[in-house]
Amino acid sequence: MGIVVQKYGGSSLADADAIKRVARRIVDVKKSGHDVVVAVSAMGDTTDDLYDLANGVSPLPPAREMDMLLTAGERISMALVAMAISDLGFTARSFTGSQAGVITDSVHGKAKIIDVTPGRITEAIGNGHIVIVAGFQGVSQDTKEITTLGRGGTDTTAVALAAALEADACEIYTDVDGVFTADPRIVPSARKLDQVSYEEMLELAACGSKILHLRCVEYGRRYGIPIHVRSSFSQLEGTWVVNDPRPGTEVQPMEQPIIAGVAHDVSEAKITVVGVPDKVGEAARIFEALADAQINLDMIVQNVSAAATSLTDISFTLPRTDGQTAMTALARIQAEVGYDKLLYDDKIGKVSLIGAGMRSHPGITSKFFGALASAGVNIGMISTSEIRISVIVDENVVGDAVRATHTAFDLDADEVEAVVYGGTGR
Amino acid sequence: MGIVVQKYGGSSLADADAIKRVARRIVDVKKSGHDVVVAVSAMGDTTDDLYDLANGVSPLPPAREMDMLLTAGERISMALVAMAISDLGFTARSFTGSQAGVITDSVHGKAKIIDVTPGRITEAIGNGHIVIVAGFQGVSQDTKEITTLGRGGTDTTAVALAAALEADACEIYTDVDGVFTADPRIVPSARKLDQVSYEEMLELAACGSKILHLRCVEYGRRYGIPIHVRSSFSQLEGTWVVNDPRPGTEVQPMEQPIIAGVAHDVSEAKITVVGVPDKVGEAARIFEALADAQINLDMIVQNVSAAATSLTDISFTLPRTDGQTAMTALARIQAEVGYDKLLYDDKIGKVSLIGAGMRSHPGITSKFFGALASAGVNIGMISTSEIRISVIVDENVVGDAVRATHTAFDLDADEVEAVVYGGTGR
Repeated sequence: MGIVVQKYGGSSLADADAIKRVARRIVDVKKSGHDVVVAVSAMGDTTDDLYDLANGVSPLPPAREMDMLLTAGERISMALVAMAISDLGFTARSFTGSQAGVITDSVHGKAKIIDVTPGRITEAIGNGHIVIVAGFQGVSQDTKEITTLGRGGTDTTAVALAAALEADACEIYTDVDGVFTADPRIVPSARKLDQVSYEEMLELAACGSKILHLRCVEYGRRYGIPIHVRSSFSQLEGTWVVNDPRPGTEVQPMEQPIIAGVAHDVSEAKITVVGVPDKVGEAARIFEALADAQINLDMIVQNVSAAATSLTDISFTLPRTDGQTAMTALARIQAEVGYDKLLYDDKIGKVSLIGAGMRSHPGITSKFFGALASAGVNIGMISTSEIRISVIVDENVVGDAVRATHTAFDLDADEVEAVVYGGTGR
Repeated sequence: MGIVVQKYGGSSLADADAIKRVARRIVDVKKSGHDVVVAVSAMGDTTDDLYDLANGVSPLPPAREMDMLLTAGERISMALVAMAISDLGFTARSFTGSQAGVITDSVHGKAKIIDVTPGRITEAIGNGHIVIVAGFQGVSQDTKEITTLGRGGTDTTAVALAAALEADACEIYTDVDGVFTADPRIVPSARKLDQVSYEEMLELAACGSKILHLRCVEYGRRYGIPIHVRSSFSQLEGTWVVNDPRPGTEVQPMEQPIIAGVAHDVSEAKITVVGVPDKVGEAARIFEALADAQINLDMIVQNVSAAATSLTDISFTLPRTDGQTAMTALARIQAEVGYDKLLYDDKIGKVSLIGAGMRSHPGITSKFFGALASAGVNIGMISTSEIRISVIVDENVVGDAVRATHTAFDLDADEVEAVVYGGTGR
């Protein structure tokens, strides 16, 4: 029997009872003959509490110290989980990200994992211990500073550990039963997916599904780690994220669904730069200014220039949290670029249809847009990939758009399952 | 200008406002031209909260995991102090005990510092930063495990850092104005001492004064670090703990006080082993059993054996928290030693008179016992050193005994100072 890596999020570790339940689940896997390595997030609201403490002493805390502060959260939860396991008669050893050999770059607040050197973990496993690792954190390669991995970091920690330890699987425990065809809070008839491909999961994550973080899925895909997303509150099978379960795009078995699901995202804003002179290099200058401000853009649309004026409008979407920074960066280059004005709209939502099956199925786009039209939803921007179509709509009609699309693609379940849905912070 | 090491306890870091006040104080010292290194405890009740969390998941948490858990407390406070300093326009770097090079033995929960290798601290100082170090914690030399130093650990961290950095002084900030001639809660007329010798401070700490921990004073004495105990709530000079300020014990200047103060301790219990056969090796066997159980004894008295029976009674005091363990260890050797029975008394108190001056002043003992007799206090056990006399009395009369002694030795202040008195945990 090999190694199983598990990840428990903050909502699965909310209090002493929850921690004891998690400990029993871990011990069950150990009893079944597997070695177990567990990545944990901070308990329930700990991270929010730590943010509040920081804001209490400084409006703009240095990122290095913020990481030092936040990593205390996982230190607490990992020690408590280890204690609860010990109370069940098994031995556990907790390790910080640094001790576990999670080596990152030096970008505080959103460090990337460079390498995992799990010497202490394998030694502890060899001694028969269950290993608990602080998720979300690592130590920088050059400066030996404590770093955090940013949103969804503990998922990434778990998959990175699974890859480094050549684990059989990585189980991501959360407070929902798996990955659904849509957010059940918006679409009560949403169905749980038994399997989803890495590519589809990447698009789902990029398009607003909060079940798994993008980087976690990227890591799993690169190292071929099967990821099992499941609930820590039940024994049900969840969703397996694996290599494309469809045997090739040419020969598409009838029973395989074309569409994996409908995702939505209301965390973005749209900026339009109005009246940009339609000359070589002007657009580049705009995006250079945004890149210098460390802003990740999502969708970008440039309208055809009106021949009479030789002016064009450039629109793009970005995280609402970066809105102010972006507006400031653009205002600074107005004279240089010579654009007319900036428009800012944060009352938008993005609705995305995702499915590896759509690669070989024509007519998906027209069916999608038809469903939206029937529901009276007006489309703003459009962006597509091989396995995804995303549209920007008014924030108020996101629910209507998701439901109409879900029904149009026959994703509705026969019976509505009772699920509790909510995202964990990291 | 050299390096100043400061220590702030949990009551000085109770909330955001307290942390900001501490930050201003630290920055003031930096502005005056000193380099500053600060050891911090966990905020206010954090440690108690962490203990509660641990008890919630396990009645007997493993010591290694307990250390992992508790050290999160200092991690939080040090990051917050660093943030508050940064908010004042200065740069600070926080370091865990491990990062700061605090190397200990492997005894979880009460590790001893073996060495301090402050490479990262001196580098940060060289770059102009203020350095904040997590008190109370270190990393074990052999196993690289996170350890805690036990009660008063942050004081010890501060003095150890001062020694390793060859600091000019070590300032211990607390919630009282300094070291007093007695606990002002019991003796309202107690006076603050301007100076006290390491030896006297050691005896005061050993006899129940909670201002400074024993190991901190031992460290300061060994490396000759002047320790300044003062309040973080005022700008008053506190008490300097230094080499014996009296120029030799033979020539005693008139103005130097003979007695440093009166300490008391109600944390001990007394065990009497009744009817021990008065033979060679019996007492040794008893103390061996107690040593094997890792129990530190304080006072020990063996009564003269009654000639008729050849039986003797052995009494000793020990921390009340070790009472149950000691009784169990002794019960296990009853048949082997052949004693009659065990008596346990935790309603006792220890009152100690301390002063390096008493070395050369006869009559101190009789004056002390006379004062106790006048106050109607019955003396149980007695123990003496060169600069200390301790008596065990009934717990209920400890206050009377301390006040009577304080007055008899002319320690009462002319005016009663308003002081807030309280001990911090670590």
